[in-house]
Amino acid sequence: MEITISRTKCFCGIFGITNHKNAAMMSYYGLHALQHRGQEASGMVTHDRENGKDVFRIIKGEGLVSEVFDDFDEWQPQLTGNAAIGHNRYSTTGSSNSRKNIQPFIVNYHSGNLAVAHNGNLTNDTKLRKWLESEGSIFQTTSDTEVILHLIAKSKKKSQIDQIVEALDFLEGAFSVVILTDNYLVAARDKLGFRPLCLGKLGDSYVVASETCAFDIISAEYIRDIEPGEVVVIPLIDGDSELESRALEGKNGERKQCIFEYIYFSRPDSMIFGHYVDKIRRRLGKILARKYPVLPVKPDEKVIVMSVPDSSNTAALGYARELEKMGVDARFEIGLLRSHYIGRTFIEPGQENREMRVKIKFNPVKGVLKDKIVVVVDDSIVRGTTSKQLINLIREAGPKEIHFRISSPPIMHSCYYGMDFPSKEELIAFKMDGNVDAIKDYIGVDSLSYLTIADLQEAVKEDNPDDYCTACFSGEYPTRVDFNFTKEHYEV
Amino acid sequence: MEITISRTKCFCGIFGITNHKNAAMMSYYGLHALQHRGQEASGMVTHDRENGKDVFRIIKGEGLVSEVFDDFDEWQPQLTGNAAIGHNRYSTTGSSNSRKNIQPFIVNYHSGNLAVAHNGNLTNDTKLRKWLESEGSIFQTTSDTEVILHLIAKSKKKSQIDQIVEALDFLEGAFSVVILTDNYLVAARDKLGFRPLCLGKLGDSYVVASETCAFDIISAEYIRDIEPGEVVVIPLIDGDSELESRALEGKNGERKQCIFEYIYFSRPDSMIFGHYVDKIRRRLGKILARKYPVLPVKPDEKVIVMSVPDSSNTAALGYARELEKMGVDARFEIGLLRSHYIGRTFIEPGQENREMRVKIKFNPVKGVLKDKIVVVVDDSIVRGTTSKQLINLIREAGPKEIHFRISSPPIMHSCYYGMDFPSKEELIAFKMDGNVDAIKDYIGVDSLSYLTIADLQEAVKEDNPDDYCTACFSGEYPTRVDFNFTKEHYEV
Amino acid sequence: MEITISRTKCFCGIFGITNHKNAAMMSYYGLHALQHRGQEASGMVTHDRENGKDVFRIIKGEGLVSEVFDDFDEWQPQLTGNAAIGHNRYSTTGSSNSRKNIQPFIVNYHSGNLAVAHNGNLTNDTKLRKWLESEGSIFQTTSDTEVILHLIAKSKKKSQIDQIVEALDFLEGAFSVVILTDNYLVAARDKLGFRPLCLGKLGDSYVVASETCAFDIISAEYIRDIEPGEVVVIPLIDGDSELESRALEGKNGERKQCIFEYIYFSRPDSMIFGHYVDKIRRRLGKILARKYPVLPVKPDEKVIVMSVPDSSNTAALGYARELEKMGVDARFEIGLLRSHYIGRTFIEPGQENREMRVKIKFNPVKGVLKDKIVVVVDDSIVRGTTSKQLINLIREAGPKEIHFRISSPPIMHSCYYGMDFPSKEELIAFKMDGNVDAIKDYIGVDSLSYLTIADLQEAVKEDNPDDYCTACFSGEYPTRVDFNFTKEHYEV
Amino acid sequence: MEITISRTKCFCGIFGITNHKNAAMMSYYGLHALQHRGQEASGMVTHDRENGKDVFRIIKGEGLVSEVFDDFDEWQPQLTGNAAIGHNRYSTTGSSNSRKNIQPFIVNYHSGNLAVAHNGNLTNDTKLRKWLESEGSIFQTTSDTEVILHLIAKSKKKSQIDQIVEALDFLEGAFSVVILTDNYLVAARDKLGFRPLCLGKLGDSYVVASETCAFDIISAEYIRDIEPGEVVVIPLIDGDSELESRALEGKNGERKQCIFEYIYFSRPDSMIFGHYVDKIRRRLGKILARKYPVLPVKPDEKVIVMSVPDSSNTAALGYARELEKMGVDARFEIGLLRSHYIGRTFIEPGQENREMRVKIKFNPVKGVLKDKIVVVVDDSIVRGTTSKQLINLIREAGPKEIHFRISSPPIMHSCYYGMDFPSKEELIAFKMDGNVDAIKDYIGVDSLSYLTIADLQEAVKEDNPDDYCTACFSGEYPTRVDFNFTKEHYEV
Repeated sequence: MEITISRTKCFCGIFGITNHKNAAMMSYYGLHALQHRGQEASGMVTHDRENGKDVFRIIKGEGLVSEVFDDFDEWQPQLTGNAAIGHNRYSTTGSSNSRKNIQPFIVNYHSGNLAVAHNGNLTNDTKLRKWLESEGSIFQTTSDTEVILHLIAKSKKKSQIDQIVEALDFLEGAFSVVILTDNYLVAARDKLGFRPLCLGKLGDSYVVASETCAFDIISAEYIRDIEPGEVVVIPLIDGDSELESRALEGKNGERKQCIFEYIYFSRPDSMIFGHYVDKIRRRLGKILARKYPVLPVKPDEKVIVMSVPDSSNTAALGYARELEKMGVDARFEIGLLRSHYIGRTFIEPGQENREMRVKIKFNPVKGVLKDKIVVVVDDSIVRGTTSKQLINLIREAGPKEIHFRISSPPIMHSCYYGMDFPSKEELIAFKMDGNVDAIKDYIGVDSLSYLTIADLQEAVKEDNPDDYCTACFSGEYPTRVDFNFTKEHYEV
Repeated sequence: MEITISRTKCFCGIFGITNHKNAAMMSYYGLHALQHRGQEASGMVTHDRENGKDVFRIIKGEGLVSEVFDDFDEWQPQLTGNAAIGHNRYSTTGSSNSRKNIQPFIVNYHSGNLAVAHNGNLTNDTKLRKWLESEGSIFQTTSDTEVILHLIAKSKKKSQIDQIVEALDFLEGAFSVVILTDNYLVAARDKLGFRPLCLGKLGDSYVVASETCAFDIISAEYIRDIEPGEVVVIPLIDGDSELESRALEGKNGERKQCIFEYIYFSRPDSMIFGHYVDKIRRRLGKILARKYPVLPVKPDEKVIVMSVPDSSNTAALGYARELEKMGVDARFEIGLLRSHYIGRTFIEPGQENREMRVKIKFNPVKGVLKDKIVVVVDDSIVRGTTSKQLINLIREAGPKEIHFRISSPPIMHSCYYGMDFPSKEELIAFKMDGNVDAIKDYIGVDSLSYLTIADLQEAVKEDNPDDYCTACFSGEYPTRVDFNFTKEHYEV
Repeated sequence: MEITISRTKCFCGIFGITNHKNAAMMSYYGLHALQHRGQEASGMVTHDRENGKDVFRIIKGEGLVSEVFDDFDEWQPQLTGNAAIGHNRYSTTGSSNSRKNIQPFIVNYHSGNLAVAHNGNLTNDTKLRKWLESEGSIFQTTSDTEVILHLIAKSKKKSQIDQIVEALDFLEGAFSVVILTDNYLVAARDKLGFRPLCLGKLGDSYVVASETCAFDIISAEYIRDIEPGEVVVIPLIDGDSELESRALEGKNGERKQCIFEYIYFSRPDSMIFGHYVDKIRRRLGKILARKYPVLPVKPDEKVIVMSVPDSSNTAALGYARELEKMGVDARFEIGLLRSHYIGRTFIEPGQENREMRVKIKFNPVKGVLKDKIVVVVDDSIVRGTTSKQLINLIREAGPKEIHFRISSPPIMHSCYYGMDFPSKEELIAFKMDGNVDAIKDYIGVDSLSYLTIADLQEAVKEDNPDDYCTACFSGEYPTRVDFNFTKEHYEV
Repeated sequence: MEITISRTKCFCGIFGITNHKNAAMMSYYGLHALQHRGQEASGMVTHDRENGKDVFRIIKGEGLVSEVFDDFDEWQPQLTGNAAIGHNRYSTTGSSNSRKNIQPFIVNYHSGNLAVAHNGNLTNDTKLRKWLESEGSIFQTTSDTEVILHLIAKSKKKSQIDQIVEALDFLEGAFSVVILTDNYLVAARDKLGFRPLCLGKLGDSYVVASETCAFDIISAEYIRDIEPGEVVVIPLIDGDSELESRALEGKNGERKQCIFEYIYFSRPDSMIFGHYVDKIRRRLGKILARKYPVLPVKPDEKVIVMSVPDSSNTAALGYARELEKMGVDARFEIGLLRSHYIGRTFIEPGQENREMRVKIKFNPVKGVLKDKIVVVVDDSIVRGTTSKQLINLIREAGPKEIHFRISSPPIMHSCYYGMDFPSKEELIAFKMDGNVDAIKDYIGVDSLSYLTIADLQEAVKEDNPDDYCTACFSGEYPTRVDFNFTKEHYEV
């Protein structure tokens, strides 16, 4: 039976910093670097101590980091304090929930202030929510994050860290989370480590972020990843206090990191799960070339390798280079121009005219493609409609042949761990029963090849093949999943 | 010992309606009529049943009703359903809390949806909040209303109405409240009935509102007041179901209605606590004239009676008429023009120049006042600074004498029941130890007279003198009050 | 034959000041005081001299003064300089022209900078515009003001003042105008002086304004009116320079001042055309009472006199007092409450439901009117629809009789001099052929009386009866009028 | 002597279309494709005929096309008509002139409506403006475009086309212009053809645009360029009317096309001046490699060629390929990630911290650059500050050597024809007297090479070398230039 993925559980970027006099400013830069992980909304919370009192300050709103925090003179004096956490939220366009669900969340409970920013998707949140309600909890949002807050508040443990660990132990599914209290910055990753979370250092400050590109922008140094099932506790008190590492129940070295982070989501200049994303993508392109090369009939015929910018640029470069090594007269070219003036506000007037959607975003570079054998490398195919229109567009530039190469396997299953795929029925590979030939015909290319799961595992060959979750390709979900999960039953 | 009144507990206007196909539109009109009770923010919640599911819709924001609901085509299609509640919020300018504290509040708990709009100020909220936190509740705002929601969610009672009654039984202080659930509209008033709340009928619909002027605008009929300590339960199911009346613990016929509602806050065209406001105000003016007349030395000399528009218009009319009856050649004149173009957005550039504040709002009508004996009637004096500047302004118009008559006693004490007075130390009457002569000199008038508490009681002579709270004049608070109450300790 | 009044020619408020270090701030206050003359848009221009260069600064926009100039810290540092002019524009809702037509206008021409703000309506603007176009002028707006600018630029006179006087000599119709150049503030009134314009002094500064209420707010002293046909030239150079008075061609002592300024438009606390508005309005009420009293059949029966607030308050007071003098037991009461929370943003959802328009604005005070003989005093009837609904509303409060008294004659003709009446066909008095009985029946009152033109003239008996324009009542236009005038033929 | 370039004369994108039922929509798409030519402001004018009358409709505002035209349902019904012109304006941040100078301009003159959109910079505008003012013209803006409008209005010619041609004959300098009248769309290019302007066809419609990428998005077909000194007249009347070509005085086949359009400004997928931009850029990269190769000491050492994205991508690809052909083990890599989330709203808090400007926009891909010989290809160096910081940033990624290659000669002179360079004194090449070694040291690279003007001419070898303006490199201005030109002397 099929489900509707709730759009309130989603891909996001998180950031945290301690012991820095410009904590909010550093977070601002960090969130900017993580903008690709969430463009719908952004928020920051700082912790300050005024006259012996702990004060939390928050600013959050809809839009890009540069839109929510557009008036420096306004927000900078407000967000005082030496510690901060921040969050970018992925698009959940049109949801009437959107305003209330913007993170971080901030509340007051028996042990003081509490702010949480969360990336991932819990798989037992419905059950937890029902239990909490039966205990008298009230919910103002449909967000997983509120569940986490209630679990912490419910804990009877004395120490705040114990409360947090107990709460996190209840959770199933994917989460990377930063929590700010009056005394600590806590950063944790679920037991299987679906989503990335990195630890860094900047002078005397600790920094945590979804990806290392957020460290680069503030010149922080990468130390290590937060481990799957690890809870890192960083005291806010400056001075000699050291960070403490706690383990969640069930932490056992097993990991199920999201391979799609490498394929599409993370930035190529980031290092996550121990590798530079750029390096893995280039490998994916090379494997793709070795296994599914495009070899011209006439040996001296030229082959143009192009990407669908920007996410498949590196894979396309790898593909071109590997083809060259095979003696083919291949070269990487920029065959599609991508407009960066679209943003969230671009309307597509006349929705009937769907082909405009692609034309507004892409224009083929005619001189480059005319009469050429063209290999188009893309990172994935989801619904297939965009690919079809894009290929149509490229076709108008007059290439001799178009070969489509995908640097991932066919996406056949929904993701319950935070990747924002549509429902199964909308996935072209599911609809066509995994028949690559049928997909090829639908999209209208001369040939189409995907990678296999084994190919992906080869690209991360330094790691154990089981270290990665490939459920969207294989359907093998590493945790219990509530297939009956339905969308939130009320709208706020 | 002195306290700071939390600005999150405050004067407001509330409205509710059932069984009306244009429930949101009726609420819009009702809230517009109640605009004087709160200009900072406004909100509405509707209940709809879609495919057998109960859905709550909410729109709220900062500004006047006409600003929050400025695009009819946008909000009207969203706020579907046959039942609604609404709320106007009084100014708490500059509070960083303001956005989150806008009412109604809407949450989800074990028994379904719940929305609350509240007018008044609880006196035991700090205690309740601490207890709830110790039980694992988390708070997102500093509002009393959230306390009410938690108490309902905590109740172990089976029936939702029992849960609500149990929760309200916990509360001390002043509250008039409307609650919307999936099945009921509940309207209740605290045991002493500090704030008004009226019940009306419009066709097959029940209506509740802070004042009857909200009934007039939608041509609803006034039935009766909700009684002090009464909980009125109106089923949302259309048809034969009748409303049910429940009693709060301690309901015993005693009442302590806020006399200041008559003096200043309510609209003159409303009926509250059983009387037209306009009628009581005229009586206050007449009593003021009888007890503190201005009698010219030369019997044929003319006396001009003017009001500080608009709240003291009726009292001034009563004063003038009574003086005339006493044989004085007195007449009511419009001596001050009031600008209605100020609104919430008006800046006062050059804050140092305080006198501009008054000039921006008022201009004396010179021809009327020149060389005359002038009686200025006002409803009250709070800090005294505005009165002083206003009298200065009138003085410039060249009157022979200025006599200042106040249709209430000196305000000497803070209000813990929802009236937005400043702290005691800022009250001119407290600062001058109740010395009327000193106040007269400070303000700079030829004579100054206030009413006494007994005079107020005479104005509502149909009622028992003990039926009204006069704590701001007498300091005799009818409930326990936490004088150590301090402002919220965190800002959200 | 009938015409459509162009909404771009209109009622407005103008202001100017010289030689004041806070020229913009003074203008801000002045415009605020003149807000009633125009709520659609507002603007200011200042003149500054920087490094020997003349610089004009301008800010203008749609909305109230307090909305256009809502951020003091933003506009105050921009509008530098010692001289300024400002303008408030009357509502021309929905016109796509509106943005471009906001005044003041500012241009650069051969003799330097030029800014103009204008109140009135030219009657030969179409002819002038055609002639200017034939000479190569291009027009960016449909405003009269742009015509004035072109005429000045076209002048071959050497001295800038001669250029301006020559340009103004071309104009026919109504205008009060302030002009700012690099060297002068010029204030002028058309030969017949339709619209008011006053001259004042504030320390070493000269001030001009449509009404004296703009002087009061900044504590400036009224000196005299700018005379009909007078051009007052005030040098910007501080020090000994004195103002110069020039005469327009045709200035001959004749005047045709708009009597409607007294009846409705000006503020009661202003002095215009040599009288306090308040005084004239009271006289109108008294004459109305003397000529059309409401005398109860039973001599001891009470009569309630009420106004339609706020514009007819003073006339109603005068009416009540005069009736009293005649021995009637009459008294002035506040019978209608007016909401001041409407503003420009208030929507009337469900336009079909026209009666809501009136209910949103007014509510009768029931206790006051029930079973009483009620006299409702209003300043004028235009279309009659609002009056009809208002009387309906009052009727619901249960009065015994309603007598309607109008402090002006029936409006039968369009105004070509700046008053924003609708076309003749929409005027109830024109539609009913001046038949007062028919109007009475339409509105639904027990009796209806208007004043006559002679009555108006009696109210300004100190002046020559011919000093006032009464064309909207009599149809006798004091200048040539282009009855074929049609609306602008292009939209910008 | 040095000058300040007026920011009101600038680079822009223009578009026009006739005889299309969705003229505004086509313009919307066209302007979107031309967005790179101007991001500050955007506007459209349509021509409609209603009831036999010609009506011009206009919408314009600050921001991107997608921001100015963000509500499709709002603008689409307003911009009716079969013909339209549009304009994108280049950044002139902070100018108080900005609002008034947004194009197209629309006016009314003796021959009807007139709208103009203009790209380029007149060199005799000050003289023309003075002359026009002496003839009685008034100016509302500081824009060249207003000068053009006045010249047309001044013309005594009978035919509107003659008026326009006469006006354009007066102009000196650079202009590509589209003019809409009640009867024609006119497109013209100055005698030397500095700026591009293309003619296309879409069904029965003619289309004109700055670049052919605006044709691609609406699937229009490119026909030919508007010739230097050509005035193309397209009748708006549908049917058999054909376009007419007129010649400006002085049109003689000579041309001085801006070579910088190829180097940086135009889109690589456009064809302008007869060539695909992409092709010329690749040639520039190849010539750069042939003349200034980076040859490793050890012949088998690898060389990484990277671009400063996005404008130098193609040149970098050409460089890498040519190096490969020379037997070097060179490859193109994506060494810098560029953030596209910056937009116009991004603030750089802490302006002192200038290096953040670059870090916010770019992040090096560390794995790619570490220990490598790196060639960075950029299109030009203006002030040198950004280049310096960018090289610093790349240096942090640990390359062995950095070689900087510029696909244009040193910029030594201001542009008077519309390119928005800063003043001469701010140009690094001017400051360092053209000393490449000094610039190399300033920027901090191991080697630095520029192209020569002859190299540029080789890249467009199909054309006559004299067909291009290279004044910014050589100082040889092809027209008279007013070196004393100073900034506008008033601000509006």
